[in-house]
Amino acid sequence: MLFRQLFDRQSSTYTYLIASGKGREALIIDPVKEQMPVYLGLIEQLDLKLVRAIDTHTHADHITALGDLRDATGCVTLMGEFTRAECVSQHVREGEIVDVDGVRLKALYTPGHTNESFSFVRDGRGECEDAVFTGDVLLIRGSGRTDFQGGDPYASYDSIVNKLFALGEETRVYPAHDYKGFTVSTIWEERRFNPRLAGKSAEQYAEIMRSLNLPDPKMMDVAVPANLACGQRA
Amino acid sequence: MLFRQLFDRQSSTYTYLIASGKGREALIIDPVKEQMPVYLGLIEQLDLKLVRAIDTHTHADHITALGDLRDATGCVTLMGEFTRAECVSQHVREGEIVDVDGVRLKALYTPGHTNESFSFVRDGRGECEDAVFTGDVLLIRGSGRTDFQGGDPYASYDSIVNKLFALGEETRVYPAHDYKGFTVSTIWEERRFNPRLAGKSAEQYAEIMRSLNLPDPKMMDVAVPANLACGQRA
Repeated sequence: MLFRQLFDRQSSTYTYLIASGKGREALIIDPVKEQMPVYLGLIEQLDLKLVRAIDTHTHADHITALGDLRDATGCVTLMGEFTRAECVSQHVREGEIVDVDGVRLKALYTPGHTNESFSFVRDGRGECEDAVFTGDVLLIRGSGRTDFQGGDPYASYDSIVNKLFALGEETRVYPAHDYKGFTVSTIWEERRFNPRLAGKSAEQYAEIMRSLNLPDPKMMDVAVPANLACGQRA
Repeated sequence: MLFRQLFDRQSSTYTYLIASGKGREALIIDPVKEQMPVYLGLIEQLDLKLVRAIDTHTHADHITALGDLRDATGCVTLMGEFTRAECVSQHVREGEIVDVDGVRLKALYTPGHTNESFSFVRDGRGECEDAVFTGDVLLIRGSGRTDFQGGDPYASYDSIVNKLFALGEETRVYPAHDYKGFTVSTIWEERRFNPRLAGKSAEQYAEIMRSLNLPDPKMMDVAVPANLACGQRA
């Protein structure tokens, strides 16, 4: 298994480059436009053929590399079925499997941060660890804001508690962002120690989320329109 | 296997918390003083008993948490045999094995960035990936500067090419720092694609290192004396 977690420091975004090995087909999750040279360098050095570029949702804090990767590598761009990004060529539904040369990701509809957010569950098949790529809906000891782009704290709670927390306890949690220096968590930990969720009701969670009073992301007015065009035309 | 790579953004330091599982004895490599609350939080939540805190070398760019971790957890502080830090209670030699509740690290003397730098090789025993924690001597697509603290480009070249590159090609490389968003590499990749080393002679490497003309680390005058006291008295 080839697995690379890459960090964009400016937006604190984690991007995941995954293949079953060197010289194989690969996929990438939540790539950042400014990091294109890093991705293309790794793809070349590891002799990978990128066949899928996936966004978990329409990001508001950075510009996606989906369009640039499609142009550079011929890969297929992929998002969940409810995205408004017309440039995306493959749309997946709840339960659908994305199989890239032996790497299997199952799509899970997890709205709440946005109304079109999907998570992707990797079945380790006993050879490597099961993992879930949660985008911004579930973060390590936190969760993505729920106050724009169709966000809804009750939907977020339902996605996290009833879908993500229902995964195997040892499933590794890989979010699209971290601001505190964590790189990974597990479902076991987030169930027990996520301060917004552990022991909290949906009402209590909604109250926490409503009281965050966060400013709009600096790049929102640029990033959202750009990302609806796969990062290529704002 | 419980494996956590943690990032200190201010100094771009990677710290590694490792145990054979939840509820077991654990070790930590290259901890940063400012991140103590994160380490103690994880140790408590994962029900770990920290028994070793390891520095690969005397860092010049951040203050170590070795002393604070010893005071907070009763762990043993550990460095290579040539450290000048008198506060360190266990010193390891080339080839010595550190065995923490099933996690086995082999000490490898890898001078060059400093004259007392050690790397630590984890034998995955076929159950998980082999890995090497290289401190600052080998970085991802780079290497640690060789112009102070007994640094020597020829020693660095010898450590990297004759010791680290002699490890299995699939051995994962986990450095103490990264500034470009990489979290891991492999020996295979660094042998082929590290621009300072791939296809370079010792002379060529020494010339590259001599021509870097880096400024002293901002924290050097504070960090080195502090770290010789395990981060507790500058």
